[in-house]
Amino acid sequence: MIARTPEEFREAGLDVRINTRAAGADLRQRTVSLSDGTTLPYDFLVLATGSIPRLPDIPGIEREGVFTLKNYTDALRIKAYLQNRPCRKAAIVGAGFIAMEMAESFQSRGLETTVVYRGSLPARRWDREFGKLLLQELNRQSVTFLAEQEPVAIEEGVNNRLRLITNQEELDVDLVLFSLGVRPNVQLAADMGVKLGNSGAIKVNFSQATDSEGVYAAGDCSEVFHRICKRYTNMPLGDLANKQGRVVGRNIGGDAASFPGVVGAQSFKLFNLEVAATGIDEQEATSCGYHPVSTVIWGKAIPGMMPAAKQVGIKLVADSTTGKLLGAQALGEMGAVSRINVLSCALWGGMDLDDLSHLDLAYAPPFSSAWDVIHIAAQNLRKKL
Amino acid sequence: MIARTPEEFREAGLDVRINTRAAGADLRQRTVSLSDGTTLPYDFLVLATGSIPRLPDIPGIEREGVFTLKNYTDALRIKAYLQNRPCRKAAIVGAGFIAMEMAESFQSRGLETTVVYRGSLPARRWDREFGKLLLQELNRQSVTFLAEQEPVAIEEGVNNRLRLITNQEELDVDLVLFSLGVRPNVQLAADMGVKLGNSGAIKVNFSQATDSEGVYAAGDCSEVFHRICKRYTNMPLGDLANKQGRVVGRNIGGDAASFPGVVGAQSFKLFNLEVAATGIDEQEATSCGYHPVSTVIWGKAIPGMMPAAKQVGIKLVADSTTGKLLGAQALGEMGAVSRINVLSCALWGGMDLDDLSHLDLAYAPPFSSAWDVIHIAAQNLRKKL
Repeated sequence: MIARTPEEFREAGLDVRINTRAAGADLRQRTVSLSDGTTLPYDFLVLATGSIPRLPDIPGIEREGVFTLKNYTDALRIKAYLQNRPCRKAAIVGAGFIAMEMAESFQSRGLETTVVYRGSLPARRWDREFGKLLLQELNRQSVTFLAEQEPVAIEEGVNNRLRLITNQEELDVDLVLFSLGVRPNVQLAADMGVKLGNSGAIKVNFSQATDSEGVYAAGDCSEVFHRICKRYTNMPLGDLANKQGRVVGRNIGGDAASFPGVVGAQSFKLFNLEVAATGIDEQEATSCGYHPVSTVIWGKAIPGMMPAAKQVGIKLVADSTTGKLLGAQALGEMGAVSRINVLSCALWGGMDLDDLSHLDLAYAPPFSSAWDVIHIAAQNLRKKL
Repeated sequence: MIARTPEEFREAGLDVRINTRAAGADLRQRTVSLSDGTTLPYDFLVLATGSIPRLPDIPGIEREGVFTLKNYTDALRIKAYLQNRPCRKAAIVGAGFIAMEMAESFQSRGLETTVVYRGSLPARRWDREFGKLLLQELNRQSVTFLAEQEPVAIEEGVNNRLRLITNQEELDVDLVLFSLGVRPNVQLAADMGVKLGNSGAIKVNFSQATDSEGVYAAGDCSEVFHRICKRYTNMPLGDLANKQGRVVGRNIGGDAASFPGVVGAQSFKLFNLEVAATGIDEQEATSCGYHPVSTVIWGKAIPGMMPAAKQVGIKLVADSTTGKLLGAQALGEMGAVSRINVLSCALWGGMDLDDLSHLDLAYAPPFSSAWDVIHIAAQNLRKKL
């Protein structure tokens, strides 16, 4: 077992090479070779190499003031950059959940923020009905959203600033953040001969063991079993990495554990909105061989008689042949994440729309209506089966 | 099908008598007889006679200013009473969720409020650890809690006020509210020969049909199937009555429906606290033949780094032979009800502590930690199996 990740070795100026094969059957002779000549023997090796932010291959991408945000160090670097010089304008390329969170973060620091996205609406995992409301919220908060634009180059602008050139316009900004997602960091695994899955991430079983004896993988670099799609996929999310890491730890420590997979629960906050989703959408459902039907309904997160009542929107996707829930999305000023957590649990348990139509929730007027939006959405979608 | 409930008929000054037998096989000759001589024929009869508040048999219980609170009319009566005379002090007998909600309500209106309870801590459905915090919250909000006291009589006090005499002291108050729970209103059903269940409420099947042909029942007067205890019980809660009513409506309207039962989810708000529970506690579990183990843990409802982070306590009860979840309770300034809703869904789906240890929830720092208190509680309890 090595105590540091390859990334940490690299940050310490060391390259890592791992030899699982040459030593033959003797476990003791499996070694990790570092670039300074050190050799570390191991019984168990855990690959936790994480992921690498995607970056477009455009001129100027290496300029100072161009950032990605994947870990704490990145966050500190961005913060230091903003503190060390007068910054007025920021551009974010991409419109996923990190891009949305950072749009709020930059704007809240007083930066004029522009989101540049090749698609038409932010947060494409979510239904267009919700995407439009996210766009409205960005506009309401004075964040500019440039739809259907892609970065072409980053040049030096006036007064040591940056000029982000897209396929349609030029933006003078102090900082450019690329939030285009990540790809699993599997170079070391591939070099070792550890098998990768169809997703491109390291193939693991329910114990987080790879195909190579004694070698485990966890986190963004590895695959997870998707309980709705019934296939392994790569889902680089922090809470999942945490859980996988614990499963690895228990297994190599001699206490059996398995990681039962994911349903794809996810959430983010955009200014006043809670945004959450779980499971799969119609397109993914169809690609899995399901026959999806869906509905979007709006209701009060808590009863209308309560002073604080706000609207919450719920989208449900179900399989028309079985009535089983396949996915859900929610958006609102309150009560969106809590509904998605219930629906994630329902997905985990393989529940159908009949279950959801009558699900026993802890009703009290400060918290929900007697018929919760979950019940109403399920009853509504049930009619389409 | 009658358009009004027996209660409504009674409020209109009419007594109701129902004849299901005399007419023999001819459905058309089943009738409802009213005290004014009217006879209504029916194909389907729905008994929705609700429940009756429990009241102790003590002198003075009939005095003006003594109330129960079960429906909207009761609430209006209490409100009118408070508006029509100068009131300074209120006593509440009982310490269940209605008593707690009304303690907040009275105190918020500026009434000095005293809760009189024969037990030692409020909300006895909840663990004593939570009960102590409820008591603290009552004290913090200047509500007096008189433990281990029972009302003995209500007399006339000075200046047309009431004197509530308990087995230990005398309280001069303007209003006494009895919140001692309810019993199913089954007199009409019993007179008709409709079969009652062991709980004393009307016995129904999953279609809400009673043992008498053409006669259905729904709401507080009827039983519900408890999915954890696997037996029928009486659970007089508004959201359940709503659901049962819809099931009856669909069945008598020709669209088959069944009511799949309850897991016992419930919540209330007491000033700054969310209080919620679902499933069963150790005592009920033992009486059902389970072998319960339990844990109470405390964690942050959202990550400690977030400015708004507050503690939330979670109690889990599981069966030691199967690891299945049997019940849960939660209390905190935030995030208690949302956790109980997830755990209600887990109970509904028959999940065990392994499921809960890895459950995929929609993690983001504004809403939860990567390891939610649900995960931590489940992992903690799992060690006791």
